[in-house]
Amino acid sequence: MEIKQPYLLFLGDAPDQLAAKTAFGIKDWRPEWCLGQLRLEGCGADIGITDMTIEEGVKAGAKTMVVGIVNAGGKFPDHWVVSIIEALEAGLDVATGLHIRLRDLPGVTEAAKANGRQLHDIRYSDQKFATGSGLKRAGLRLLTVGTDCSVGKKYTSLALEKEMRSRHINVDFRATGQTGILISGRGISIDAVISDFIAGAAEWIAPENDADHWDIIEGQGSLFHPSFAGVTLGLLHGSQPDAFVVCHEPTRTTMRNVKHPIPSIEQVIERTILEGSLTNPNIRCVGISVFSAALEDEKARAYMSELSARHALPVTDPVRYGAGPIVDEIQRVFSQQGNR
Amino acid sequence: MEIKQPYLLFLGDAPDQLAAKTAFGIKDWRPEWCLGQLRLEGCGADIGITDMTIEEGVKAGAKTMVVGIVNAGGKFPDHWVVSIIEALEAGLDVATGLHIRLRDLPGVTEAAKANGRQLHDIRYSDQKFATGSGLKRAGLRLLTVGTDCSVGKKYTSLALEKEMRSRHINVDFRATGQTGILISGRGISIDAVISDFIAGAAEWIAPENDADHWDIIEGQGSLFHPSFAGVTLGLLHGSQPDAFVVCHEPTRTTMRNVKHPIPSIEQVIERTILEGSLTNPNIRCVGISVFSAALEDEKARAYMSELSARHALPVTDPVRYGAGPIVDEIQRVFSQQGNR
Repeated sequence: MEIKQPYLLFLGDAPDQLAAKTAFGIKDWRPEWCLGQLRLEGCGADIGITDMTIEEGVKAGAKTMVVGIVNAGGKFPDHWVVSIIEALEAGLDVATGLHIRLRDLPGVTEAAKANGRQLHDIRYSDQKFATGSGLKRAGLRLLTVGTDCSVGKKYTSLALEKEMRSRHINVDFRATGQTGILISGRGISIDAVISDFIAGAAEWIAPENDADHWDIIEGQGSLFHPSFAGVTLGLLHGSQPDAFVVCHEPTRTTMRNVKHPIPSIEQVIERTILEGSLTNPNIRCVGISVFSAALEDEKARAYMSELSARHALPVTDPVRYGAGPIVDEIQRVFSQQGNR
Repeated sequence: MEIKQPYLLFLGDAPDQLAAKTAFGIKDWRPEWCLGQLRLEGCGADIGITDMTIEEGVKAGAKTMVVGIVNAGGKFPDHWVVSIIEALEAGLDVATGLHIRLRDLPGVTEAAKANGRQLHDIRYSDQKFATGSGLKRAGLRLLTVGTDCSVGKKYTSLALEKEMRSRHINVDFRATGQTGILISGRGISIDAVISDFIAGAAEWIAPENDADHWDIIEGQGSLFHPSFAGVTLGLLHGSQPDAFVVCHEPTRTTMRNVKHPIPSIEQVIERTILEGSLTNPNIRCVGISVFSAALEDEKARAYMSELSARHALPVTDPVRYGAGPIVDEIQRVFSQQGNR
C-alpha cells in the first residue's frame, strides 16, 4: 500500500472539527504533503489550509485526494461519491480509511479504471504475506505498546520519529492503522490482516534495514485487552522490537468497550518483555508516554515525575511536552550497546 | 458454516494413503457419516469403505461430497473439477478444506447456482463476527493447547469428546481448523478470520450453553510459536477455558517451520494460566496428551509415567491408550467444584 503525495484533503460537509480528525492528523504530522482542503457547502470543519476545488488541487500538483473525515452512521453520502468520481476523472488517486470501500460505491471502480487511477481502501488488504519467520533481521526497532487501545500509540510514534529526525537519526515511522497509513503514505492495517499472517505482516512492515536505522512501529491494542490481545501479540512477535514505550491514559478505569480493568504500567512492562523475548531476547522498555490531556499542566507534571521515579524511566507526554526525554534514553542505551 | 451429512468422500487419484489424511480423519471420528468413497482411476488411497459413484452416493442418501485429499503442488486438477460439477448436478453440496477455492474453479459456481447446491470453502469465511466481549458465559469449556503446531490437539479434543460421551457427559467438540470442521460439520477456520475478530470468533465457536455442558475446543498453534502465537492467544481469550490439556510430541526439537526451540511443558502450563486468566481466572491444567507414535510402547509408557509424576497430572496418548485418565481428572475436579 503506497499512496502518492501530495494530497488534497476531502472534508466534504463534515459537521464539526471532530469528524475531520483524520485530516487534522495528516496536516499535523505531514503539513508539507497537504496542498489544500476541499470543503462542500455546509462543512463545519476547517483544518486551516487553503481551500481548493479538485481542479485547483490538480493544478497545484496534488496526486491523491484523501477522504479525511468519518462518515456518520456508516453511510457514505451520494454527494461525496460525486466528488470522488470528479477527482478520479481529473486525474487524482483516491484514498480512504473508512469501513465502506471505495470499490463498492456506485460508479467508482469504473471511473478509476477509465482514468487509470488507483483506489486505496486502507482498511482492507488483498496483499499476500508470508507467515512470520521469527528470524532476527538487521536494523533497530521500537514498538509503542499500551495499557489500552486509544492511549496515544500513534502520536507517540510520530513524535518519536520527529524528534529522532531532528537529531539526524536514520528513522522511519511504520504505520499499522488507517490514519497512520495516510500520514506516512505506506503501511498495513494490521487488524485487517488474516490472523495466520499477523506476525508475517509485521515483519513486512518493518523489513531488514541498515544496522543503525530505527523503525518506530505504531502499536495496536494491548496484551491485556480481551478483544485484541492476539493482534497485539502477533505485532509484537513480528516487530521484534529492541525497545518499547508504554503509552498510558491516567484517568481511564476500564478498557475500551469492555468491562476489564486497565492493567498497571508494571504489568504491561513485564508482560511485554516476557512475550517479546520470544523473538528478541534483548527487548527493553525505554520510556513511558502519558496521554495527559485530561490533566492540568501542574497535575500532569507531578504525575509524570512520580511515574518516572517509580519506574526509573523517562516519562513524557510527547505531544504536549516533546519526546526528548525518551529519545535521550534511546541514545544513551543504544550508543552504549553499539549497533548490532 | 454448517455442512450437511452424510458424506461421499472424494479421494480422486490421490497417489497414496498420506494424501487422503483428511478422509481418514473423517472416517475415524465420524464413521456413521461416511457412506462411501469415490476413487478415480489410478487412486493409491483406500480408506476401507464402500466404493461408490456419484450416482450411487446420491441413491444411498449422501448430502455432501467432501474433498478428502490434498492437492499436490497447490494445483487443482481439471479432472477433479469434472467430478465436482457432476456431484453438484447430481444434487450434492461440495466441501473442501484446501487453499484453492471451489468458487474459483471454472464452471463450479455456475453449476452450484444452477442446481441450488452449496459450496463450502472451509478455509475461507465471509462470516461477520463481533469483536470479543471478554464477558464470561455459562457452560464449561476445555481448550487443547500445545508445545507446538501439529502435536495432536485435534485428535486429543476428539478423543476427549468420545470418552466424555461414553460417560454420558453433555459435550461437543468445537472445530477451529479445516479437518475438524469436516469431522464435526460445523466450525470456523480460526486462522482464516480477520485478526481483529479472533477472540470474537472463538466466542461464537463455543457460545453460551447449559451450566453442565462441556465444549471441547480444538486448539491452534502455540503461545511460543513466533508465526502463530497471536492466533493462539486470541483463541485462548475467546474460549475462556475452565480447563486445558497440553499436547506434546516428545521427539521434536525445534518448532514447526521455524528455528525456535520447543518450549517445556512447564512453560506452556504457566503461560497458558497467565494469559488465560485475563478472561477466566479459574483456568487450570487437567492433563497432558502425548503424541507418542515415534516411541515404542514400553518407552512411551515410561515417558508418560515420568511426566505424570513430575507434573502431578494425568498423562496419556488418547489415541493410543484412551483419554480415560484425563476425563477422570475432569470429573474429579469439576464435580467437586459443582457447576458454575
